[in-house]
Amino acid sequence: MRALVFRNNVLTLEQNYPLPDLQSGEALIRVIMAGICNTDLEITRGYAGFTGTLGHEFVGVVERVSGTARGLPAPGTRVVGEINAGCGLCDLCRSSDSRHCAKRTVLGIVGRDGAHAEFLKLPVVNLLPVPSEIPDEQAVFTEPLAAACGILERASISDHSNVAVIGDGKLGLLCAQVVATTGAKVTLIGKHQGKLQIAARRGINTVLLDQTKARAREFDVVVEASGSPSGFALALDLLRPRGVLVLKSTFHGATEINAAGIVVDEISVVGSRCGRFAPALELLKTSRIDVQNLISEEFALSDGVRAMVRAADTGVMKVLLRP
Amino acid sequence: MRALVFRNNVLTLEQNYPLPDLQSGEALIRVIMAGICNTDLEITRGYAGFTGTLGHEFVGVVERVSGTARGLPAPGTRVVGEINAGCGLCDLCRSSDSRHCAKRTVLGIVGRDGAHAEFLKLPVVNLLPVPSEIPDEQAVFTEPLAAACGILERASISDHSNVAVIGDGKLGLLCAQVVATTGAKVTLIGKHQGKLQIAARRGINTVLLDQTKARAREFDVVVEASGSPSGFALALDLLRPRGVLVLKSTFHGATEINAAGIVVDEISVVGSRCGRFAPALELLKTSRIDVQNLISEEFALSDGVRAMVRAADTGVMKVLLRP
Repeated sequence: MRALVFRNNVLTLEQNYPLPDLQSGEALIRVIMAGICNTDLEITRGYAGFTGTLGHEFVGVVERVSGTARGLPAPGTRVVGEINAGCGLCDLCRSSDSRHCAKRTVLGIVGRDGAHAEFLKLPVVNLLPVPSEIPDEQAVFTEPLAAACGILERASISDHSNVAVIGDGKLGLLCAQVVATTGAKVTLIGKHQGKLQIAARRGINTVLLDQTKARAREFDVVVEASGSPSGFALALDLLRPRGVLVLKSTFHGATEINAAGIVVDEISVVGSRCGRFAPALELLKTSRIDVQNLISEEFALSDGVRAMVRAADTGVMKVLLRP
Repeated sequence: MRALVFRNNVLTLEQNYPLPDLQSGEALIRVIMAGICNTDLEITRGYAGFTGTLGHEFVGVVERVSGTARGLPAPGTRVVGEINAGCGLCDLCRSSDSRHCAKRTVLGIVGRDGAHAEFLKLPVVNLLPVPSEIPDEQAVFTEPLAAACGILERASISDHSNVAVIGDGKLGLLCAQVVATTGAKVTLIGKHQGKLQIAARRGINTVLLDQTKARAREFDVVVEASGSPSGFALALDLLRPRGVLVLKSTFHGATEINAAGIVVDEISVVGSRCGRFAPALELLKTSRIDVQNLISEEFALSDGVRAMVRAADTGVMKVLLRP
C-alpha cells in the first residue's frame, strides 16, 4: 500500500509499504480521509522520536477484524478510532484509562503506524461508528475535537467561568468553541483577524494578541493552544491568582517558565492531551462546532509530502489527505 | 532600633533604623525571635526586588495598637502574624483572601519592613495569639509550618495517597510531616542521611536522592521543596499519569521544563505559597510536628549578617535571630 513514512529524519511516500499485520482483537481500517496535525509536523522536527507512518486523525471503513474480537463495529462500518492502544493488562488499562498506559502504542506517534496511508490497524475496542449525519470531512476532526473536549475533564469550567484561549490556529478554534458549549464567557486571543472571525461568528469574544495588556489577571482559566513557548508566559499574565492554565500544545524542546510566579500566585498548570471520542461525535452530529471553516486544503495521499510542506506554511489550517 | 536591612544589594545591620510608623489598625510588635528562611537568602540574590528589613518568620509581643483597631490581641499578648497585608477593599480581600490581593504588602518581602529587627508592624487582623504550650523557638516556625499546611489546600491528599516530598531541608521536613498527618503514605527524598533521620523518627519513609530511579511513575502527589530546578524534572519522573506536582519553593530566575511531558502525562503543576496560621498553631500546640530538630543555631540580631552567611552554608537548617 501507499504510506507517508518518516524514517531517518526524512519523509517519503512509499509505494509498497506492507499492509498492517493484524493482531488478535485488531481491525484493519481502510482510510477514507486523514488530517495533518501540528503534532505530525513536530514529529518531523524530532518530537517523540517516532519512526513509521505519520498521522492520527482519520475516518475510515472497517475492512476486516482479526481473531476473537467481540462486538461491533462490523466490516463495512464507517469509524473513527481512539489513538491510544493500551496493553490491556495494567492497572490503568483495567480502569479504562489506556490513554495513560505506560506500555501503550499511539497511532502515528508511538510504536504504531499511523493514518497517512491507505490502511491502518487499531484494536476493535478503540473504534466508534460515525453517525450518518456527519460527513467525512467533519468526522476527520473527531480526534482533535475530542482533545479539545479533554479540557473539560481537566479544569472545572461552568457558565460562571471567564476563560481565555490563546492561539487562533485550528486547535485554539476547536478549544474556544468547546469551552463555549459550557456557557462560560470565552475570549479567543490570536494574531489573525480572519481566523478570529471564525470564532466571532459563533459568538465568542476575540482579541488580537497585541491588545491583551489590559487583560492581566482577568481570567479564571487560560487554555494555551498556540504551540508557542511565549503563550505560556502570556497565560500566566492573564490568570487571576489561583487560576488554572490548561496546556494543550505539545512541542519539541524545553520551555522556560517563571516557576516563582506559579508559586506566588498559586497557579495550577494542567496538562491536557487526548479526550474521549463520544462527546466529540455528539458535538459534530448536532453541528455545535464549526469545523468546516477550519479546512484549508485537501491533497491526494500521493501528494502527501507536498501536503505536509503546505500544512507548515503560516496561516494554513487543516490540511486533509485522501488516499 | 536595630534592623537587618537589604538595600542597594548590600545587607547591613543598621543601629538607628526608624521605628515602624503605625497606620490605623496596625500593631507595633516587639520581636522576641525571628527565623531566617531560604526566601530571605533568595532576596539577597535579587528575588522579588525587595529593599528594606528582611524576615517574615517571627514570634513577638504586641507593644501598642494604633487608631480604631477592633478586638484582640491586646498589648502584652504574645503573637505570630500572617505576613500578607491586603488592601482590604478589593474583591479578594473582601472574600478573606488577602494572601492574593494584587496591592498587598508582604512582611519582609514586598513593600513592608520585616522581622529581622527589634520591632515590626502588621495589621491587627493579621495577628494570632500563641497558646502558652508553644515555646518561642517553636512558635517562630508557625509561618513556614503554615506554608507546609498550604499544600493541603492545593492538592487532594488522603490516607489513600502515595506522596513523595523532594528536599530534606527545613521546608521539606515540615512538608513531609504535615502531609503525614493526613494518613497518606509519605516518602521523603533527600541527600543527607542525618536530615532524613529526623523524618524517619516520625515514621516517614526516606530515600536517598541517588536511589530514586526505581520509583518512576509511582506517586500520586510529589511536593517539590528542594528549591532546585532539578527537583522539578525529578518530580515529573516520579509522578503517575494525571499526578499532581506541588511547587513549594520560590527561587530567582527561570526554570526549564519539559512542557510536552506535562501534556502527555496530563500532570497538574500546582503552586503553593502561604497557608493559614491557625492549623499550624494547632499542630505545634499538640506537638504533632518536630520543629525542635530543625534548629541549627541561634544568633543575636546584632550578629545578623553573620547569621545570614551561616544560614546559606550547606547542610545548615533553621537559623534563629534574637533581638
